[in-house]
Amino acid sequence: MRIGELSRRTGVPVPTIKYYVREGLLPAGELSSPNQAHYDETHERRLRLIRALLEVGGLKVAAIAEVLGAMDDPGRPLHKVLGAAADQLGAAGAVGDDAEAEAAGAVVQRLIARRGWHSHEGDPAARDLARALAALSRVGHGAFLELLEEYADAAEVVARADLAYVGRQGPVEELVESVVIGTVLGEAVFGALRRLAHVDASARFFGRVEGQAEPEGAGAREA
Amino acid sequence: MRIGELSRRTGVPVPTIKYYVREGLLPAGELSSPNQAHYDETHERRLRLIRALLEVGGLKVAAIAEVLGAMDDPGRPLHKVLGAAADQLGAAGAVGDDAEAEAAGAVVQRLIARRGWHSHEGDPAARDLARALAALSRVGHGAFLELLEEYADAAEVVARADLAYVGRQGPVEELVESVVIGTVLGEAVFGALRRLAHVDASARFFGRVEGQAEPEGAGAREA
Repeated sequence: MRIGELSRRTGVPVPTIKYYVREGLLPAGELSSPNQAHYDETHERRLRLIRALLEVGGLKVAAIAEVLGAMDDPGRPLHKVLGAAADQLGAAGAVGDDAEAEAAGAVVQRLIARRGWHSHEGDPAARDLARALAALSRVGHGAFLELLEEYADAAEVVARADLAYVGRQGPVEELVESVVIGTVLGEAVFGALRRLAHVDASARFFGRVEGQAEPEGAGAREA
Repeated sequence: MRIGELSRRTGVPVPTIKYYVREGLLPAGELSSPNQAHYDETHERRLRLIRALLEVGGLKVAAIAEVLGAMDDPGRPLHKVLGAAADQLGAAGAVGDDAEAEAAGAVVQRLIARRGWHSHEGDPAARDLARALAALSRVGHGAFLELLEEYADAAEVVARADLAYVGRQGPVEELVESVVIGTVLGEAVFGALRRLAHVDASARFFGRVEGQAEPEGAGAREA
């Protein structure tokens, strides 16, 4: 198909498609004449993936280039592709160098060791977790750490469901794509679900107890 | 304390503190002389909260102003403050108006009804979920929907843990703050944990099965 047809099918404007080709996100079309290129279904599929990573995953163009580069590298093991996708998610920036950052880093390392999780030195997910925990502690909510095991349990449930899904996919190319999609879009899905469940739990909890002396059910977790 | 001391204690530059005051994020200090303002611990606490929402929560200044405005409104019920915080999270933009968007919206409404979740018309979390599901379906991964119940189970576990934590807090001001912090920073914590668990599950799963004909454990979920 011509670039105009590709644009029509995907809803992506022609100049944007050309920009993705220039940035190396999308392979160039095959030249059928000096000023006309031919695109096929692989371009359409890749274009939809780019848009999903951009719009729903919130990844920047440079981050998408990294992820697609890892996907297209035939020598790269699958879990390294996943690592590359995970590396592009989350907040940028260092943990900090205060006492809170040091304590948070130690908490994360103990959690990883206790759970027997594979993790590498400088793992961005570990760094993001330490950043978030240090920030909680700086705003006087270090006690939030008590929830860490329940959070980790839920994270394992979700991660296992993701991997089981990926494992059901067919050929290796689709497998790789599933890993990337699951990592990036799955995070958007879970974040939205948590907020839905959260607002519901809060309406039930606080909608009922507002104005009362003691919130019903407080501390019931220990029981 | 003077603004210089507030800056030293929090690590936030003086011009940035002045910017937050101008934007209404931080109350002005009390004037002790025509060109000197006095700040106290409430300013320090609020400043740390602003930085956490900004750096770890990834909220923009305008979004933080919305959340803090809801926090400071004494007439606003707690779960509405939570809703205001949740509204500032997630991706911006519409779900789209294609067949995938319509189907995804219907899936989300059925999920909410089946779980008996409180949710309102135009709930941004429901919209974000529909956007992510529509995007998955557009890239040929509509089967990801099979994971929705497991994701929702895990989201409920996390939301209940959050609310139990919030319920243990003391005075109402801290309660409100906990809700905001839990919503925003908790999302960063869970996202990082999921990625840690994910990379681990993937290394175990694909590290072992690469090059084999059939991934061990594929389809085991149904058993």
